[in-house]
Amino acid sequence: MDSAVTAAWARRQGFRVHGLSFDYGQRHGQELEAARRVAQGLGLEQHRTVRIDLRALGGSALTDEIEVPRGREPEEIGQGVPATYVPARNTVFLSVALGWAEVLGARDLCLGINAVDYSGYPDCRPEFLAAFERLAGLATAAGTEQGVSYRLHAPLMDLSKAEIVLLAEELDVDLAWTHTCYSPHSEGGTILACGTCDACQLRLEGFRQAGRRDPIAYGPRHDEHSA
Amino acid sequence: MDSAVTAAWARRQGFRVHGLSFDYGQRHGQELEAARRVAQGLGLEQHRTVRIDLRALGGSALTDEIEVPRGREPEEIGQGVPATYVPARNTVFLSVALGWAEVLGARDLCLGINAVDYSGYPDCRPEFLAAFERLAGLATAAGTEQGVSYRLHAPLMDLSKAEIVLLAEELDVDLAWTHTCYSPHSEGGTILACGTCDACQLRLEGFRQAGRRDPIAYGPRHDEHSA
Repeated sequence: MDSAVTAAWARRQGFRVHGLSFDYGQRHGQELEAARRVAQGLGLEQHRTVRIDLRALGGSALTDEIEVPRGREPEEIGQGVPATYVPARNTVFLSVALGWAEVLGARDLCLGINAVDYSGYPDCRPEFLAAFERLAGLATAAGTEQGVSYRLHAPLMDLSKAEIVLLAEELDVDLAWTHTCYSPHSEGGTILACGTCDACQLRLEGFRQAGRRDPIAYGPRHDEHSA
Repeated sequence: MDSAVTAAWARRQGFRVHGLSFDYGQRHGQELEAARRVAQGLGLEQHRTVRIDLRALGGSALTDEIEVPRGREPEEIGQGVPATYVPARNTVFLSVALGWAEVLGARDLCLGINAVDYSGYPDCRPEFLAAFERLAGLATAAGTEQGVSYRLHAPLMDLSKAEIVLLAEELDVDLAWTHTCYSPHSEGGTILACGTCDACQLRLEGFRQAGRRDPIAYGPRHDEHSA
């Protein structure tokens, strides 16, 4: 959802948008399918998926055998570093994006991270982005040329999930394309979100506060969603 | 060669060494086989290889269909950013290493980069490492705890290839384990280095200046190596 809205935002800014997704051994591989729907729906220049086997390193409930936390209230979720934190994930993703930007001759990297609902992820903070921008100028062949610098854009940084839902509407992003659940299940060919993991809780709370209905399907384990 | 000497250096410093290699779609996949030999020969705590498909992004002679430069003199090689530069490679590698360090509870990252023979790679410079150290403290869960910081060690940074050859000797690293060539070929089951790519030229020059014989095998295309 955040990536889709960020891509639509970038297009409205006048950027030609090249979409990049990561297959990093996440349990919730459905998000890659969703990314392809979003790229097609928004008519991006292109969309690529880079495989990186972070599972080889272990350490997160998103890639490892650690259990995904369930049933936490939205206000609990933002506290501390959660079990679903993938070590250095955004650093790795941004590094690969930087490499691709260098190949494409692009200078602007947009990402859908969010500090309000950041759930304790250290690599979703503005000071992290500032440090990465500085690194980018030193890390690349382009950065060594005079006057070339990279800019990171995180347009959702200060938005609540409810504001992101409303921005999606304003930008004509169909949120039915998107996928959020850390732990979805499949029933008769349909992907159902669990409704209880942190990601589902934050998403549902966002729709609730925005006064909008979430268009995606939730499974029977989710007992609050009746609309 | 540089990684092997760096690992042996780290062990001598008293570190328990966990080796990390990358399968990034490089043409010279033999270096991964060599990394396993080195890890075993040095008796590292463990050795892991992370796959990351940088080939999906194109842009380098090491992963793409661009031709590897040949027959350049050592003094030519250090000038400008070469065709074998993989965009943001060291940034990506360090990011993954940082994630693993966080999982392991390690605080020290050692890498075999070298500024003297750096062949124009921007991400082999001391200021790049300093920027990455700063980022690491902001990017990780560990870095958000008080007093935790990451240190990067690049013990070969200011050494010439000849000095690296002599350091290997001092540290009992058998350089026959190592592999350097960007474009090796196989003959009757034996891997032969080409002797003409930039990496081979720098390696051979290092042995020559150190007054030592390179123990690895070179193919017939290499006409200077007669010892």
